[in-house]
Amino acid sequence: MSSAKFSLAAAALVVAAPALADDAALREQARELFETIPLAAPTLENNVISRDRVDLGAMLFFDPRMSRSGLFSCQSCHNIGLGGVDGLETSIGHGWQKGPRNAPTMLNAVFNIAQFWDGRAPDLAAQAKGPVQAGVEMNNTPDRVVATLESMPGYVEAFDAAFPGEENPITFDNFALAVEAFEATLITPNAKFDQFLMGNDGAMSDQEKRGLALFIDTGCVACHAGINVGGQGYYPFGVVEKPGADILPEGDKGRFAVTETADDDYVFRAAPLRNIALTAPYFHSGKVWDLKQAVAIMANSQLGAELSEEQIDDIVAFLGALTGEQPQVVHPTLPPRTMTTPLPEEM
Amino acid sequence: MSSAKFSLAAAALVVAAPALADDAALREQARELFETIPLAAPTLENNVISRDRVDLGAMLFFDPRMSRSGLFSCQSCHNIGLGGVDGLETSIGHGWQKGPRNAPTMLNAVFNIAQFWDGRAPDLAAQAKGPVQAGVEMNNTPDRVVATLESMPGYVEAFDAAFPGEENPITFDNFALAVEAFEATLITPNAKFDQFLMGNDGAMSDQEKRGLALFIDTGCVACHAGINVGGQGYYPFGVVEKPGADILPEGDKGRFAVTETADDDYVFRAAPLRNIALTAPYFHSGKVWDLKQAVAIMANSQLGAELSEEQIDDIVAFLGALTGEQPQVVHPTLPPRTMTTPLPEEM
Repeated sequence: MSSAKFSLAAAALVVAAPALADDAALREQARELFETIPLAAPTLENNVISRDRVDLGAMLFFDPRMSRSGLFSCQSCHNIGLGGVDGLETSIGHGWQKGPRNAPTMLNAVFNIAQFWDGRAPDLAAQAKGPVQAGVEMNNTPDRVVATLESMPGYVEAFDAAFPGEENPITFDNFALAVEAFEATLITPNAKFDQFLMGNDGAMSDQEKRGLALFIDTGCVACHAGINVGGQGYYPFGVVEKPGADILPEGDKGRFAVTETADDDYVFRAAPLRNIALTAPYFHSGKVWDLKQAVAIMANSQLGAELSEEQIDDIVAFLGALTGEQPQVVHPTLPPRTMTTPLPEEM
Repeated sequence: MSSAKFSLAAAALVVAAPALADDAALREQARELFETIPLAAPTLENNVISRDRVDLGAMLFFDPRMSRSGLFSCQSCHNIGLGGVDGLETSIGHGWQKGPRNAPTMLNAVFNIAQFWDGRAPDLAAQAKGPVQAGVEMNNTPDRVVATLESMPGYVEAFDAAFPGEENPITFDNFALAVEAFEATLITPNAKFDQFLMGNDGAMSDQEKRGLALFIDTGCVACHAGINVGGQGYYPFGVVEKPGADILPEGDKGRFAVTETADDDYVFRAAPLRNIALTAPYFHSGKVWDLKQAVAIMANSQLGAELSEEQIDDIVAFLGALTGEQPQVVHPTLPPRTMTTPLPEEM
């Protein structure tokens, strides 16, 4: 009995050996291109991720009174339960207006080279100031945000704790720093892909591994590499072939609006692909709901590659392995308004 | 030294004695009129508060895909971080429309005699079906809700677990039952008032106790009694004197729309006053932002009483002692959409 067992185990080892060798090679290749999501928030250059600052940031992130109407919070478009997006082509904002671009996720966004589809904000603090003021989004002003915060003792205390020693802690800059500190904690470790990178062969299925190999070999990694599998550089949408105006609206020239150089026509930050299976619809226009179609369009327009149905399925399976553990956040209890809190304005 | 100490203590006892006697009498009186909020959800007649059902209910409560536009969830108007309300006069709904009445809190709502300002829903399950379908709110249909839920394996599993043994667990009725089960857990125990009721003299300040005594003696308890300090019966708004149309709009006749009897003209369910300090603005019209003004109007219109500034302050202090421990809910991670999930519709 004991010897029979031994031979069975030996046989299994022989069959598994080539797969293991492939796994090792694939992992080695992948490790040169990608990085795992860490378990804890990274250190920031211009901010301190203290417990008090993160807690304050969570309050601000979930507080609809940061918008003029009182309806929208950061959470409205960057829903922590929906992979950090709103699941709309483009967001609905103040007065039922439509935003110009699909809302990107804030999950792992701290690892992006810069924020927004065109990278016009260098960090999450700068980003946080945008939607609050945008007329089609929260339609507020820095002064009104500060007045709102100053009117509530709960926020006065929370800012004191989060920015100790500052004479006047309630500022629009500190509002943005607190939101950034909270968002820096919204990272999604332990995706199957991360587990594979860390050495667990069984974490990814064969199809997912084939998809990873294809993702590398086809050239997707030219733009989608690094810790966020994208989000690290700027590239024109339509390198080889420009998609139709239904997917790439002519009016939105992307990074051109930031740099005003012709080279940046239709240039966008390569989308970070972490949790991409959760964040339909796709592209800055939000016009594509099917991840398979998105992969096919990318292969075609960026690489001139015509992928087979099977290859697309494999890559989509790999992209599914980029879904990490979603943040578990207790919804904060927000300070009650007072008689000096600005009233909501719907118009 | 020892005898000096003794006499000081004796003196203190003499001074404190009447206050202690008052506390006991006040508590006795209050216990006949009110009830403490329990620590755990109550048993429901037509529902089972299982962990699976509550978890599913939380997902549904926070899922904006329950609305046609994909923007509104239950949480939009019943914000768990804002005492269960949206802090607006009346809610903003589909297409930026305004709801007809101020959104009431779902916190402790399980203890109300019935739901909505006019009591037209007998329980929270019946209530949950209303806003989902209301054209000015979530503007959805039962069929579209069911189709949305059926399209996502995460919901199929969650309904299977929450309604075990049912052949077809995804129904609009079960949607409502799950929301009710979750909402039944949203109770706020241990308010200062509850602690006082339970025997802790020091839980309420002298002013809060004076307010409680006034609240009883002035007659507020005729309508605002029971576990929710209101929410147990129907009364005309303006028993003694009808407030102006700015506060009591003529077009909204309250319970008349439910019963169609002339006696129910301008009749509303007495507002439950638990957490009332958190839930401005006040009245079904949401026209009053100041709790002091709300108390003055009520005293005047319902009781014909002209309260002094100091008396109003005392009652408002008592009302503040009705703020309980707010629910701590982890924001649920929602199932990702699939290609069969109905697309959001903004129009």
